[in-house]
Amino acid sequence: MIKVTVWNEFLHEKVHEEVQKVYPDGIHQALAKGIAAGDIEVATATLEEPEHGLTEERLANTDVLIWWGHMGHDKVDDAIVERVQQRVLGGMGLIVLHSGHFSKIFKKLMGTGCDLKWREAGEKERLWVVNPAHPIAAGLPEYITIESEEMYGEHFDIPAPDELIFVSWFEGGEVFRSGCTFSRGQGKIFYFRPGHETYPTYYNPQVLQVIQNGVRWAAPSGAAAPVRGNHQPLEPIGNKG
Amino acid sequence: MIKVTVWNEFLHEKVHEEVQKVYPDGIHQALAKGIAAGDIEVATATLEEPEHGLTEERLANTDVLIWWGHMGHDKVDDAIVERVQQRVLGGMGLIVLHSGHFSKIFKKLMGTGCDLKWREAGEKERLWVVNPAHPIAAGLPEYITIESEEMYGEHFDIPAPDELIFVSWFEGGEVFRSGCTFSRGQGKIFYFRPGHETYPTYYNPQVLQVIQNGVRWAAPSGAAAPVRGNHQPLEPIGNKG
Amino acid sequence: MIKVTVWNEFLHEKVHEEVQKVYPDGIHQALAKGIAAGDIEVATATLEEPEHGLTEERLANTDVLIWWGHMGHDKVDDAIVERVQQRVLGGMGLIVLHSGHFSKIFKKLMGTGCDLKWREAGEKERLWVVNPAHPIAAGLPEYITIESEEMYGEHFDIPAPDELIFVSWFEGGEVFRSGCTFSRGQGKIFYFRPGHETYPTYYNPQVLQVIQNGVRWAAPSGAAAPVRGNHQPLEPIGNKG
Amino acid sequence: MIKVTVWNEFLHEKVHEEVQKVYPDGIHQALAKGIAAGDIEVATATLEEPEHGLTEERLANTDVLIWWGHMGHDKVDDAIVERVQQRVLGGMGLIVLHSGHFSKIFKKLMGTGCDLKWREAGEKERLWVVNPAHPIAAGLPEYITIESEEMYGEHFDIPAPDELIFVSWFEGGEVFRSGCTFSRGQGKIFYFRPGHETYPTYYNPQVLQVIQNGVRWAAPSGAAAPVRGNHQPLEPIGNKG
Repeated sequence: MIKVTVWNEFLHEKVHEEVQKVYPDGIHQALAKGIAAGDIEVATATLEEPEHGLTEERLANTDVLIWWGHMGHDKVDDAIVERVQQRVLGGMGLIVLHSGHFSKIFKKLMGTGCDLKWREAGEKERLWVVNPAHPIAAGLPEYITIESEEMYGEHFDIPAPDELIFVSWFEGGEVFRSGCTFSRGQGKIFYFRPGHETYPTYYNPQVLQVIQNGVRWAAPSGAAAPVRGNHQPLEPIGNKG
Repeated sequence: MIKVTVWNEFLHEKVHEEVQKVYPDGIHQALAKGIAAGDIEVATATLEEPEHGLTEERLANTDVLIWWGHMGHDKVDDAIVERVQQRVLGGMGLIVLHSGHFSKIFKKLMGTGCDLKWREAGEKERLWVVNPAHPIAAGLPEYITIESEEMYGEHFDIPAPDELIFVSWFEGGEVFRSGCTFSRGQGKIFYFRPGHETYPTYYNPQVLQVIQNGVRWAAPSGAAAPVRGNHQPLEPIGNKG
Repeated sequence: MIKVTVWNEFLHEKVHEEVQKVYPDGIHQALAKGIAAGDIEVATATLEEPEHGLTEERLANTDVLIWWGHMGHDKVDDAIVERVQQRVLGGMGLIVLHSGHFSKIFKKLMGTGCDLKWREAGEKERLWVVNPAHPIAAGLPEYITIESEEMYGEHFDIPAPDELIFVSWFEGGEVFRSGCTFSRGQGKIFYFRPGHETYPTYYNPQVLQVIQNGVRWAAPSGAAAPVRGNHQPLEPIGNKG
Repeated sequence: MIKVTVWNEFLHEKVHEEVQKVYPDGIHQALAKGIAAGDIEVATATLEEPEHGLTEERLANTDVLIWWGHMGHDKVDDAIVERVQQRVLGGMGLIVLHSGHFSKIFKKLMGTGCDLKWREAGEKERLWVVNPAHPIAAGLPEYITIESEEMYGEHFDIPAPDELIFVSWFEGGEVFRSGCTFSRGQGKIFYFRPGHETYPTYYNPQVLQVIQNGVRWAAPSGAAAPVRGNHQPLEPIGNKG
């Protein structure tokens, strides 16, 4: 059983009527319902809970953390960001969605500005699979069409991803690296572009399939935690210095 | 259930007494027993069977093919190599072991000479995990020690691997990229260095764990088969040419 | 001084009036004029010359080979393809243009089918720079627009490139990884998409700038040729096997 | 002309007699002399200068910054670290040497802990070239031997490097990814392992050759600075949202 925590700042839904109509219970609830499965158990956490809902205990019980934020990036406490980073380096998976590209945690893990071009015009997006062997593309057709979305365009200021899985085409003439994986320490990270708060993107079965695939891919699976620091030789050495 | 076929040229075991002592039933049988599991079903195939045991039907029923070859590389029929390549591009996983670096199928999929340094001196090898987040490293300690192995040294003439998982240290002063992944078409490929025929490497539980992890990682999991060739526009275009 | 040989099959220009109008002296001559510079010396070679113009001597005197082929891929002699591959592995740079994706030499170096989607409809292509730090993007704006080009669409059946530099947007709704680098042995390879024979793409100053940048990037610059084969230990070892 | 600034914390040399003997004028002066060339102009800067010698003006006049730090990592002002990061994202090259792995600037650009194993025992290191096509390996033999160095061992907690150029073998049984490249924004980064303060490593001509090669590779060469933020469509779109 993979234990997922969906984190949503949960602000737009409280103040913007337009968003409330699309996600009456919040983006986190739509995601939680959308990705639950026999092997995936989902909890949620939001910005205004104590410690943003991301207590030590909660993180210790999370295999994969999903992150959606936008207008409240600055309200996330630096100490919590540091805590999340340490858990990722220790093996917790992290899926960053859409405007989460500008979250403190994503910028901290990438080491870059994570800026991009954007346009809110409800235009068409088509996400092409460019890595059909990857488990995150499991069960998908050649491309996913989303009729109305916010545009994100290159240059997306991230490190070269370890693996590139989706490239988006936008009606207005731009392209975007929409599905990117990274590893940091023992943790796996997946950035996935779609999901502006005013569009019903997180009800799209193919979008949900991608996120579910991402959860399975990002779940911890690796080697024992490396030991670092001063290290005794494993073989006899002739000290020369 | 993942369907594995272990392919072994099965020549050394018939002619070299030293090898027969280590692998009386052949390397393929040792591997088959060593990696079988509740979710892994193993069959075998060898060079001297008709079509080297790799009929269309057999390959169609194989999720992951494991390849061990050495003295008989040239005896593998080009048409069978082509057949295996097509199945890999179509999604079958491939695990190439040790001297398989010089097999026709590996060279064809890599596009390089795949040559390396070597020395048969029974020296110590220590394989360090350099990607502890990777599922192929699942359940492993920081390094695996093999007391006696053939040495393989850099430069290993392969394309830069998609992911580097193990780097070997050798007693005689060399290093080697011992665990490398690649994807080709819809298929995933894992090269794993250890396994000279005169050493009992394929009875080592950690070595078997790596190969088992590799099987799970390489099993087909991706998107629908891409359609290629002449393609009608998905959006209206203004023909200018 | 970087010594470049531009290889062109030079067939379309002899039989298709439409192509002759665009490239009266052949694509190779347009490219040769377009990329010559104070530090770049250019020669040409074509399919119908003896040994396709790619003699041992010529290749020995080539730092970077540029390849354009289409209708004559099958007419290229396998022995010459082998010769070119060996030179690339030995350090010669290779720039493969447009329909060269289906050339024997590119497929041999990639190990995949190298197939893609295509459409000849004179539509608009916009190549976005996704790696603005790369020397192949030197001096370019954020994107290059080509008013009329053949479309190439994903999935492009190549190994994951070492570096992705351009992604194309097409009017008809597709995207394509249009600028990709690979290394094989000691040689560097750059694939660059644009350049259908019926459009004046190789007179576009930005396209020529990319190819010129590619030449400078792909020119040999590396370490001594590795020695492979049986290797004496560099450190004392205790033989155990 | 490539303008290089060598930054050294310059503390060990003032307080440890052993280090003073090896680098009487400081590590920065040894490096500055060692890498100067007809196309490379070198200045220096140190921790105790105002703004650590890294004023806005100085950084604006630096193409490649070389960083050596160890006991004074914590004394580097966060505002200066932020300034250096912005210049790297804007295109300045950065070469991080040895114990600089734990500098604020390297950790900030990597997004990971950057920890490793270490041992100060004057043992032998052998750096093998694993990417002989790379310009940073230009002019080198197959490996570099350093008779006495501090050991650094895996797992080195960095993101998977874009390119791996050197892998070190250590007498005591460890390996290390000793030459790694990364790009961040428009800037190129090269991490190179050797150079403990008590050994004369920065007088070794091959080590200096690598750093000089690194300078030429990391010098800015890319595309125009990307424009980000709200972006007008380049093609007509039908607003649906």
